[in-house]
Amino acid sequence: MHTTEQLQQILDTAIQNLRFPDQPRQLYDPITYIINLGGKRIRPLLVLMATELFGKDAHDAIHAAMAIEVFHNFTLVHDDIMDNAPLRRGKATVHEKWSTNTAILSGDVMMVEANKNLAKVNPIFLKDVLDTFNATAQGVCEGQQLDMEFENRDDVSIEDYINMIRLKTAVLLGGALKLGAIIAGASEKDADLIYQFGENIGIAFQLQDDILDVYADPEKFGKQVGGDIIANKKTFLLLKALSKTDSFVLQNWINRKDFENQEKIQAVTEIYNELGIPDEAEKEMKKYAAIAFENLNEISASPIYKQDLHQLAEQILKRNN
Amino acid sequence: MHTTEQLQQILDTAIQNLRFPDQPRQLYDPITYIINLGGKRIRPLLVLMATELFGKDAHDAIHAAMAIEVFHNFTLVHDDIMDNAPLRRGKATVHEKWSTNTAILSGDVMMVEANKNLAKVNPIFLKDVLDTFNATAQGVCEGQQLDMEFENRDDVSIEDYINMIRLKTAVLLGGALKLGAIIAGASEKDADLIYQFGENIGIAFQLQDDILDVYADPEKFGKQVGGDIIANKKTFLLLKALSKTDSFVLQNWINRKDFENQEKIQAVTEIYNELGIPDEAEKEMKKYAAIAFENLNEISASPIYKQDLHQLAEQILKRNN
Repeated sequence: MHTTEQLQQILDTAIQNLRFPDQPRQLYDPITYIINLGGKRIRPLLVLMATELFGKDAHDAIHAAMAIEVFHNFTLVHDDIMDNAPLRRGKATVHEKWSTNTAILSGDVMMVEANKNLAKVNPIFLKDVLDTFNATAQGVCEGQQLDMEFENRDDVSIEDYINMIRLKTAVLLGGALKLGAIIAGASEKDADLIYQFGENIGIAFQLQDDILDVYADPEKFGKQVGGDIIANKKTFLLLKALSKTDSFVLQNWINRKDFENQEKIQAVTEIYNELGIPDEAEKEMKKYAAIAFENLNEISASPIYKQDLHQLAEQILKRNN
Repeated sequence: MHTTEQLQQILDTAIQNLRFPDQPRQLYDPITYIINLGGKRIRPLLVLMATELFGKDAHDAIHAAMAIEVFHNFTLVHDDIMDNAPLRRGKATVHEKWSTNTAILSGDVMMVEANKNLAKVNPIFLKDVLDTFNATAQGVCEGQQLDMEFENRDDVSIEDYINMIRLKTAVLLGGALKLGAIIAGASEKDADLIYQFGENIGIAFQLQDDILDVYADPEKFGKQVGGDIIANKKTFLLLKALSKTDSFVLQNWINRKDFENQEKIQAVTEIYNELGIPDEAEKEMKKYAAIAFENLNEISASPIYKQDLHQLAEQILKRNN
């Protein structure tokens, strides 16, 4: 069994060795560009960790891990078009650097590249791997659709929101782990448990992200603190606040078109504080984390081998604050 | 063995039975919309015909046929965004009827749906089926990229053009036939031959399309005759004319921004006629058709069973003129 650091090394090498055709350059250059912007490579790491948890060598799952990483980057390229985002990890997004058409088509061919990597897994597991991957990919698309729709809807419940982040963020963590489990020949029960572990960690992770967006230390936070408040993003915090108060003041801040960013952030944060929203969000986050660790506990594998996954999950949930 | 009409009936039923999730509606409604715009369903028909040519029942290949049809419709949705096309088969394109974001994301999930159908084929053939499908999908993306690039390039050769239409149009016909052959357990040699048959028919088909765009009977042609001339589309005809003459008159028509459509169409058509371009294009088209029928001849299968494919290919090449 490899340490987490060793697995990250295996991943880095595999990512460096990903080869795409030379021509047409406009189609393939953006793939190399986006993949080399970096990131923590959490998703492919989860594939490898699950494979080793169930007693097989990480190298058996390297193609599936690459499929997950390329697919994830594909979603970033297309999401950035839809969200009109100028920057990704501090660099120009693909549609900004090239064009929207290039970003659409390079994204499409990344989806094909992801599937080409997937087709390289041991044929014994191929059908199961495809079914899990396709269900995951479909969930991610549905999550992005819901996220876009929520911007223009006034009837989003907290349940709707949790379901959206489950689809948009969490199923990919669950799917990555399940792929690793399938390739290691884990039982269906264990494969489902590790999927649930990933999904619940993913929901907790996104809730933590919502909290950090308001309460992070600006020095350590990668993006602007309060961005969600400025954009009226319907996060757990805003939805919870709206459900707890018919405060005219909060509604007024949401409706205002002209405002000073810092003033709005401070005012809305104070409303959150008065309503005890940070505690409630923290409680909700910990609820999903606790379910996740329970899922992990139930898996039939040595507790020692589970430690690395437990540790990684803790790290993910504690980052940047 | 089924007749072509029976196979079309099997396809119609299967397409009617395609089921997508209900929610989110904005994500899935466009799929039903685009697929039900109709079309001749040539590509999935080729899958089924190849399967029966090699002695298996069409129903064995129905999921692969659906994968090809859904994939083809996905490319239409994304191509229409990139080409800024308002209409598809006389109806609003998906990005016009909904939005560009919806068209991007619905297209993405159609790619997933295509892969879901593909994953249902007999696991014995799954790896081969995936490799063929992924190579085909990659080729189609490359073809679309080249087609877009050619608009702004002045150095496109006839060879470049043939390669572009091969990728954009022909590999999908070849890929569809090869999938059917694989699922019928055909030899690798026969699977490659039927792929070549499809690719060569596809190139001949596109060349015929270029000819029709200039010389079709306006009464019978589905779109505006002369559309390629108005848009300076670098078809075989224009590239051949440019290679045969340094005519200032032709170059002048290409560069002019203000012109009467009918006047330009008439003038450029006359230049084509003087240079003998229609005959050259017809000769080129027939060259690829002849290679295709030679490929078909070489396949190890009863000549009687090849007749239907031969007939369909003749029909495709003779349409609308």
